[in-house]
Parts: sequence; structure tokens; C-alpha cells
Amino acid sequence: MVQEEIRRRNLGRLLRHVHLGGSVSRAVLAERMGVNRSTVMALTGELTAAGLVHEKMPADTGRAGRPSLVVRPDAARAYVLAFDVAVDWLVAARVGLGGAILDRRQAPRPRAGADLDRVARVLAEFGRRLHDAAPPDSVCVGVGASYCGMIRPGDGMVRYGPELGWVDQAFGAELGHRLGLGLPVSVGNEAHLGAQAEQQRGAGVGFQNLIYLHGDVGVGGGIIVGGKLLNGDGGYGCELGHMLVNPNDGRPCGCGSRGCLEAEVGERALLDAARRPAGLTGRDALRDVVTDADRGEPVARDALRRIGDWLGIGVANLINLFNPGIVIFGGMLRDTYPGMAEPVRARIAANVLPVAKERVRLRTSVLGDDATLVGAAELGFSALMADPLGVLTRAAAPPVTAAGGPERRLRPTPP
Amino acid sequence: MVQEEIRRRNLGRLLRHVHLGGSVSRAVLAERMGVNRSTVMALTGELTAAGLVHEKMPADTGRAGRPSLVVRPDAARAYVLAFDVAVDWLVAARVGLGGAILDRRQAPRPRAGADLDRVARVLAEFGRRLHDAAPPDSVCVGVGASYCGMIRPGDGMVRYGPELGWVDQAFGAELGHRLGLGLPVSVGNEAHLGAQAEQQRGAGVGFQNLIYLHGDVGVGGGIIVGGKLLNGDGGYGCELGHMLVNPNDGRPCGCGSRGCLEAEVGERALLDAARRPAGLTGRDALRDVVTDADRGEPVARDALRRIGDWLGIGVANLINLFNPGIVIFGGMLRDTYPGMAEPVRARIAANVLPVAKERVRLRTSVLGDDATLVGAAELGFSALMADPLGVLTRAAAPPVTAAGGPERRLRPTPP
Repeated sequence: MVQEEIRRRNLGRLLRHVHLGGSVSRAVLAERMGVNRSTVMALTGELTAAGLVHEKMPADTGRAGRPSLVVRPDAARAYVLAFDVAVDWLVAARVGLGGAILDRRQAPRPRAGADLDRVARVLAEFGRRLHDAAPPDSVCVGVGASYCGMIRPGDGMVRYGPELGWVDQAFGAELGHRLGLGLPVSVGNEAHLGAQAEQQRGAGVGFQNLIYLHGDVGVGGGIIVGGKLLNGDGGYGCELGHMLVNPNDGRPCGCGSRGCLEAEVGERALLDAARRPAGLTGRDALRDVVTDADRGEPVARDALRRIGDWLGIGVANLINLFNPGIVIFGGMLRDTYPGMAEPVRARIAANVLPVAKERVRLRTSVLGDDATLVGAAELGFSALMADPLGVLTRAAAPPVTAAGGPERRLRPTPP
Repeated sequence: MVQEEIRRRNLGRLLRHVHLGGSVSRAVLAERMGVNRSTVMALTGELTAAGLVHEKMPADTGRAGRPSLVVRPDAARAYVLAFDVAVDWLVAARVGLGGAILDRRQAPRPRAGADLDRVARVLAEFGRRLHDAAPPDSVCVGVGASYCGMIRPGDGMVRYGPELGWVDQAFGAELGHRLGLGLPVSVGNEAHLGAQAEQQRGAGVGFQNLIYLHGDVGVGGGIIVGGKLLNGDGGYGCELGHMLVNPNDGRPCGCGSRGCLEAEVGERALLDAARRPAGLTGRDALRDVVTDADRGEPVARDALRRIGDWLGIGVANLINLFNPGIVIFGGMLRDTYPGMAEPVRARIAANVLPVAKERVRLRTSVLGDDATLVGAAELGFSALMADPLGVLTRAAAPPVTAAGGPERRLRPTPP
């Protein structure tokens, strides 16, 4: 029994290394997992038989002796459905083992009037189409979703989603019900998932202490402490956007307060600073400001500089608190940060204690707008990584009770 | 070999339960450690033979059947030396297994002119006297020290200690050399150690996500995330005192910036707000303000209210970031917080997002001014908890090379 559990855990660990590493030699796997090569061979054999990985000879290594076989994930067999409820878009994707986005659907999301029913209906429709278009011998092993709000980790309940005006909406359960795949939907906060995605596959690979700022209308945060996402008691930590930085004459914030970081550096603050019309919103409007600043237009440059000073205050505070190895700017901050880097660095120089600023790096997101979707996919894959063969077997069998009826069932594996 | 390592780890785990729990029945130990009672009996037998614990019949349990023997730590056999370099005091203590402070020496520390040489000399002298006064069959198993500054975890180097004006001073090595016990000195930041002490033995027992604010001249922080101290990349995290909260017209801060939390809520800010003379400093001066406010004196009450608002901004920001179960006010904040509780709660109500404030508790330190010393003692005990019998055996034998010469050697166990 213990032996069986160790084997299951090792299968999961090996699959995870290959899933994230893409192509890893048996020798490296043995070293990283702290097991001998014959164990790696046995584990790889099982995963190969299940269709989850395959092995091939590496390209010429340039070394003498027999080269170590390279293990790669097989994207065709197991996939997840990943969903992203972002400020401007509803996105769904089929993501294969190894992390490649194999297929996707998306639709613009109106900023107002998107209730749970409508959002879940659109996403479930996308999800079913992606599922129906998947190759017949592939299996959906999990479902993950990213949402721009505070999520209860256990059941995907949206506790507070100010962008869509949601309070206590059972998003995970509703989407799962409508998909009818007999699989639970794991839901995470978009910035939390973005942080994890950047750490696993983006700018933060190798960092154990990482801060990810996700800009859209406001600013969300995902913070990795000692290799793990900072959750806090209820899973509601990392709300760096509501750090009060300007208590004296701050701008009004969506949360009802004034002077929060996201009120000072969010979309509206930058557009106002750049003297854009009051009704203007959206990513294109922000990019126009950046483009104007790049051209040397003084109002736009000054706007980025002033907003950058507020961003710098927030970032300096976070570095003092977390002593991170890297700070990553994602979402719309990926576009605007380069024009704000100078004041941000000036604030770090002025406000971070000497020792904590020695080695911190500042980078823009590598995964870009897909960071949250990639994070959602990883959430979907987590069950498979805990028990590869068990999850694959269960997912390949038709569910006993599927809410959506037989036509929505998982396609059984062909004999 | 693996078996031996499991046994060693279980001895340490059992000792730790008893060390922190004080008096734990065999049945509870078996349950907490997930092992059967015969394993607990065997482990307890070994620790009893080494003199680290003893067993006794519990008081009448009121239940039928044979009661489970109770295991207690034996304070007489193993102790640590704990040191605290605080803003106003130099403290040394002999702390017995189980956590009782058995003996202590302390001296006021002048706020200026305390260089490494002088501080280490005073503390080492205290330490040697405590050591010499220990019963002949007791053994010093470790040394821990708390320092009001940023400490490099590996070697106890003070990287930045603004209160004493230290930069890159080898405090741990120097104190260890002068003590001449042949034991390394583990050094930690005072607020980090205070946080851990409150979590292990104080107001934070049972909390996995905890924020400890330690007030003295400034404000230090210790933050526990998911049961572990937030260290960050270099061990320099938790610097909540330098969170910039008043960028527009902030008070000057010792770090060279303006408007840091500790500048707005530290000793000087409160004394100024209460219109005390400019030269006045120290804990008694702060307590006078509190006493006056308790008597209803309007200037003192207003001072606490105004400073409390700044403290509230800092605390609200921390709750948004960390979603903690508890926030603990220690050091001088233990005295001043009660008079500031109202504005702090008002800020939390106004600035923390709805979900994160649902369950957070605000409490003053239970360990009081000893929190940092208790934390230093736990640091000293950590080696014993990793390998009880090995550390005890090595500590009981005279060191082969002791820097301080034979007269400073550990007293060998009598035959």
C-alpha cells in the first residue's frame, strides 16, 4: 500500500517534470527525482504505455558513450479545458499535456451586464465545441478556470468579483454543470494563476519568491513565497491592488475607498493623466498612450512618469515586505511598464532597504495575455499530476452520472 | 540507515511536541505524530533515559480505564542560552527545555555608541555567568540571539542594523567566539523571532497565517505564511515598517526616506503628536501618553487616535496582502495599541476587501517584551529538535577546540 503510493507519487512527479520541462533526459529525471535510472525506466514505461509520454533518442550530444533517452510529453492523449473570465474577453482553450494551446475560442466580453448565467453559458458552449473537436482517442483529464475576482479555493465560488459585480456566485459549480463532462471545475484568481504560470513557464522559472502584478482595469496580484502561492487563511491574499498608497488625496477606487494602488495606476488613472476623453477605455487606448510616449509626445510621457511613481511606491513596499527575486509586470502593465521603469527604479532606490534591493529583477510577463489561461490550464492538470494513471483511467471511462446527459459525456477510449 | 533517520526524526518530533506542549499524554502524542502507542513508548523511553523528558501518571481523568501516561519536558537537563539585542536592553537568559526562563541577566543599552565589540563583550559575559551558574549535570545544547536589524540567516551577519548603526557586522561569529562554548550562535531578526514565538507559545498558537508588528523606536515585522516565516530570497522580508504610507507629506524616517509606516507610528511620531518635549524617548514616555489618554486627557487621546489611523492603514494593507487569521501587536505597540484599536478597526472596515476581513483577529502580544527572547531561545533549541540524542551527546562532551580555552569549555557530564 505504501509502496503503491510511492509509485503513484513518483509517476506524478516524473510526469510533472516532463510536462513542464518539455523534453527531459532519463539521466536528468533520475537526478532531479533522487531515484536511480532503473526506477525512471520503469516509471517511463508505465507512462508510455498509457500514452502520456514517449521516448526518443536525443540529437547528437557531442559526448562519448550511450546517450540518455529523452522523455517527452504526448500532447495528443491527455488535455484539459482552460477558461479565462478576463475584463475584456471570455476565453476557452484546449491545452495538451506539455502545455501547448491546441485549440481556442474567445469572444469579447461587454464590461457591463455579464451575469453568471450568461458567462457560464458562453464558456460552456465554447468548452463543448473544443471537446467535440478533440481527436477521438484524446481524453479530457481536468478543467481549470481563471476569474478576475476573489475565489473560494474549495469549490470555485466567486466571493467578490467587482469587475462583473459578482458576489457569492457559484461559478465553478455552474460551469461544471453546464459542461456536463462529469469533471469538477477548479477556479483560481487570475493574478494568482498568472503568477504561477509565469513561475512554471514564463519569466519566473527558477524563482522561489516572486511577485506578479496583473494590470487590467485595476491591478491584481499573485505572490509566490518560498515556492508556493501566498493564499492566506481563506485563499484571499495577494490583494496588492488595494494597498493604500495615497491616503491624503487619492483617486476613488472601485472598492469604495480612495488612494488604493489600483486607483492610482489603473487604466482610468493613466488615461486621465494622459488627458484622454473620459469615456475612453480598453487596452487599445492604453497602447495609444504608450505609442505617443515612445514618439516623444510630452503629455503621454509625463503621464507614464507620474503613474510610474505610484507604481514604484507599490513595488517598493512589496519588495520590502517580500524580499523577492523577481517582480513581473503582466496584463496591461506589460505594455505600460517599460515607459514607467525609470520612476519605478527610482522609488526602489529611494524606498527599499539596502539589503533587500541587492538582487531583485524587474521583468515584463513572458506569457503575456495568455498567462492567466496557462495558469488555469495548470490548475486543470493538477489532478493528473497527483495520480496520472488513476485520473486517466477514470477520465477515459464514461461518467456514471453526468449532469448534461449522455450526449455530453466524455468520449470513451476506443478499444 | 533510513530506519535510523526515521527514528531520529521521530525522537525530534516527539521532543518538540512535549517542549511546546508542556505536558502531553502518550495517546495524544501517538495521534499527533501518526504513529502507534508502542512507538511512542519506545521513543519516550529513549528520551527519558537521556534525561530530556519524564513520565508521570496524569491527575484523575474522570474516565474509566487505564489513563495514558503524561510526558513532560525535563527543564533541568538541557538548556539554551538566549540573547536579545533590543533597542533599550541587552538581555541574556538560560532557557530550559520546555521553554521556561530559568535565569536571566540584563542591562540597559545606551541608544548611541554601542558597537559590535561592546555589545558582544557584555552579552558574552552574561552568557558565561549564566552558564557557570547552571546546575552541574545540565548541558547547554544551543545558543540563539535576537537582533533589531536585518540578519543573514546562514551566519548571523548583521547586514543592516539602523538602530545601532551597524552594517555588515559579524555578530553571530563574534558572540560565539567570545562565549567559547564551541557552539554556533544562530541569530534572527527580533520581529521574525517574536512572530515565531507568539505562534509557538503566545497569542498565535494554532494560526498558520499571522502578522506580528513589533514596535520600539520603529516598527519591525514578522509574518508567518502557511505556517512558515516569510523569509524571501535573502531572509530580509517582512520589513513592514518601511511600507510607504504617506508619500505626500510624510515624516522623515531613519532609513532616509519619508512617510514610512514606522516614521508615522513609531515612538517619535506618537510623542510629537502628544506634544511631549523633543528630547524625550523610551518606553516610559510612551506609557505616560497611554496613561494620560486612559485618564481622558484630550491631547494624549487625540495623539493615539491620529497615530492609530496611520497604523490602521498599514494593518489594512497587510490584511489585503496576507489574508491572515490574526494580527498581533508586540513591543511598545502592546502598550499603545489598545488606545489605537478604534481607528485601526475603522481603517480595516474601510480599506480591507469584504472577504479578507471576515475572520481576522487583532490581539496584543501574550509574551510581551520576552517575545523576542523566547524566539531566540527556540532558535537555540532547533538543533536539539532535529536530533535530540546526537546533539545532547555532542554537547555533553567537551569541545575539541574551543576558542575561549579550557576554562570556558562546556562542563562535561559527571560520570
